[in-house]
Amino acid sequence: MSAAPHRPTACVASSGSEILQGLYADTNAQRLSQLLLADGFLVQGHRAMPDDRAVLVAGLGEALRTHDLVVLTGGLGPTEDDLTRFAAEELYAAPLVFHEDAAEAIARRFRERGVPMPESNLVQARLPEGARVVPNANGTAPGFFMPPRAGLGAMLALPGPPREWPPMYADARTIDFVNHFPGRPRTHTHTIHIAFVPESRVNQLGADLFAARPDVDVTILAALGQIRLRLTGWAESEAAAEEAALAHAAAFRGRLEPDTIFGEGPPEWTLGEAVVRIAKERGWKVATAESVTGGLVAARLTDHGGASAAFAGAVVAYSFDVKSRQLGVDAAELAAHGAANAETAAAMARGARERLGADWAVSTTGVAGPDADTHGAPVGTVWFGLAGPSGDHAPVRRRQLGGRGLVREWAANQALEILRRAMLGLPG
Amino acid sequence: MSAAPHRPTACVASSGSEILQGLYADTNAQRLSQLLLADGFLVQGHRAMPDDRAVLVAGLGEALRTHDLVVLTGGLGPTEDDLTRFAAEELYAAPLVFHEDAAEAIARRFRERGVPMPESNLVQARLPEGARVVPNANGTAPGFFMPPRAGLGAMLALPGPPREWPPMYADARTIDFVNHFPGRPRTHTHTIHIAFVPESRVNQLGADLFAARPDVDVTILAALGQIRLRLTGWAESEAAAEEAALAHAAAFRGRLEPDTIFGEGPPEWTLGEAVVRIAKERGWKVATAESVTGGLVAARLTDHGGASAAFAGAVVAYSFDVKSRQLGVDAAELAAHGAANAETAAAMARGARERLGADWAVSTTGVAGPDADTHGAPVGTVWFGLAGPSGDHAPVRRRQLGGRGLVREWAANQALEILRRAMLGLPG
Repeated sequence: MSAAPHRPTACVASSGSEILQGLYADTNAQRLSQLLLADGFLVQGHRAMPDDRAVLVAGLGEALRTHDLVVLTGGLGPTEDDLTRFAAEELYAAPLVFHEDAAEAIARRFRERGVPMPESNLVQARLPEGARVVPNANGTAPGFFMPPRAGLGAMLALPGPPREWPPMYADARTIDFVNHFPGRPRTHTHTIHIAFVPESRVNQLGADLFAARPDVDVTILAALGQIRLRLTGWAESEAAAEEAALAHAAAFRGRLEPDTIFGEGPPEWTLGEAVVRIAKERGWKVATAESVTGGLVAARLTDHGGASAAFAGAVVAYSFDVKSRQLGVDAAELAAHGAANAETAAAMARGARERLGADWAVSTTGVAGPDADTHGAPVGTVWFGLAGPSGDHAPVRRRQLGGRGLVREWAANQALEILRRAMLGLPG
Repeated sequence: MSAAPHRPTACVASSGSEILQGLYADTNAQRLSQLLLADGFLVQGHRAMPDDRAVLVAGLGEALRTHDLVVLTGGLGPTEDDLTRFAAEELYAAPLVFHEDAAEAIARRFRERGVPMPESNLVQARLPEGARVVPNANGTAPGFFMPPRAGLGAMLALPGPPREWPPMYADARTIDFVNHFPGRPRTHTHTIHIAFVPESRVNQLGADLFAARPDVDVTILAALGQIRLRLTGWAESEAAAEEAALAHAAAFRGRLEPDTIFGEGPPEWTLGEAVVRIAKERGWKVATAESVTGGLVAARLTDHGGASAAFAGAVVAYSFDVKSRQLGVDAAELAAHGAANAETAAAMARGARERLGADWAVSTTGVAGPDADTHGAPVGTVWFGLAGPSGDHAPVRRRQLGGRGLVREWAANQALEILRRAMLGLPG
């Protein structure tokens, strides 16, 4: 394990009042942080600033004085609310000049769409002297890169729409990052995906490992029964960064029960994808019979392309009537005992497996809230049924506190985990 | 229309490295911005800062010097990474002192859960002199409020978990906001929800209205065919703020086609809720037959409590086999022409309506991608079928560009809008 190289610092900034008014969460900042981390930067700040010139100049100036790089999204359009170019002009003392290549890119964009270009759009080609233009293939606003100057860090200005900036980031990186941050380390991220282990248990098992290596950042994110344990190695070469991340992953893996790991490698991986992969590998089709989850288990199984080879279908049975007609649940039993019980869960899974022509079927029935079940089951109670090639499995009951949305999303993941373990022959 | 009163400024800050590493989007900042806006503050900044004392003190200090109020979440735990109390001590020059009431609240929390309290947790009761404790009913870390002092604004420090801080915000507001910001205006927000009108069209229809009233902020947010037009009036009294918001809403309403408005009033409202409400009012049950949406339409209809009175069920039919067995689609036709066509859409809707015992049924069949249909339909093509009390409606074809996830979410909303318009007897 070698000492980690120095990491240049970065701040992710956004300009525009929508985020400050709480209209949406700042997902640009999240995505840019991931990209900058992967490119060897240490992200030390996020800032959102309003469409107010004085406030923007003050905030951006402070960010540029205290970071090696600021990546700012938004404020590059042609209207008077678009202040990024003026703020850069003032801070870098770099007068706006007409960039011929930017003007040509804007004009081309309008030509390609067969729309006449309003003269006002040419203001987007007026960029600070010394800036390098970053072309925009998906919109009219070009971005620009300002090298570090006079006590200020470098600045990469990109448009706000999530459809536009990501390819420009990659482009800007090729154009200029490489020159201005020659010493930045290389990184490699490896993620371990863990199902239905309490976060506190993972923290305990790996207590001495989290901060054990100065060249591997370890972060943990738990949601809805899924834990992502993310290991980012950083070193002078990509190979060394990968080696560091994988070695530390092996150390964590040694502490975890192996069958709780449902995927490794990529940062995003879901229980739905894990179930689909297992089914494809073994030539199985799966089906769902859903009451409390209302179609969410089916939606998770079909979130990603290629699911049709492994997913037969689903019956969402909210009413007693549909449960008995479509899934063969005994109508008299439903009337007598309600639907939130083991017998109904088993019958639903069996019915879905048989009627949808699947090898495996999982069912959910319970009480998502806000009201309790008329037969007395408390809010958050869910029964899961399971039918497979060797017959019915014993239904299990679990309970999750929290609002209706949380209970449903948790139950969908729980159903997928029950299915995954059964398909792999693991204990329930 | 009266001149709007002066609004105190606020900054929403968070302490902790997870957000800076891009593990999740900062939804605390979004929610706090909404709350502060509703309480009459002008939110002029968001900042996320790392678990690094020097960086935190510098960033928080700058925020406190330039805003009337900073609300900071995170960093209140008992570990050495929890730096909020030390940053406040340094900035306000207010030595940490033991707050008896905070210690008692922490001890009570452990007693209630029957867990012995580690001595280390008492560090959470050491808070800056002059701070007012904000009790935490859902966790061990108390929050605190520091009044403005010596060129610094006020600071409200709250724990990070979204389960803990919202009731504390309400509590802190009662304790101290009222005293420290007596002149802050009152606000009222009214939201108009619009379905499947291009955002550019709404911008054009209301062009002269967006900035017409200095006492009403207008914001527009478009996603997946739904537009939220949010109007926040602010004035010296709640009644005057409401009057301003409603008067300006009436002006916008006059510009929009009335049948594109699917809800008004609350900030959150979905097409699924609109469909459920119409069905309940008229005593109808609805059903869905889903291929390309994979259960998402059913999930949207059951997202909120009380759906069972209006939702019969759904069949998610990915395979030809399930389409014919469960929904009665002609197997020979499917084999010959595939599933992405008008005939299949119509047969799926008819089958769901009949077999699930519903008054109305909507169907989706098409190509979400990444691969094109084997019968030639391009990615993004979706056919929607509809069956109602007066028979089948003509299926419609729509196309949406973008990734698989976007196509599926858009198609789910489109299906709900087709259902809504048909149930209300509006032209398709």
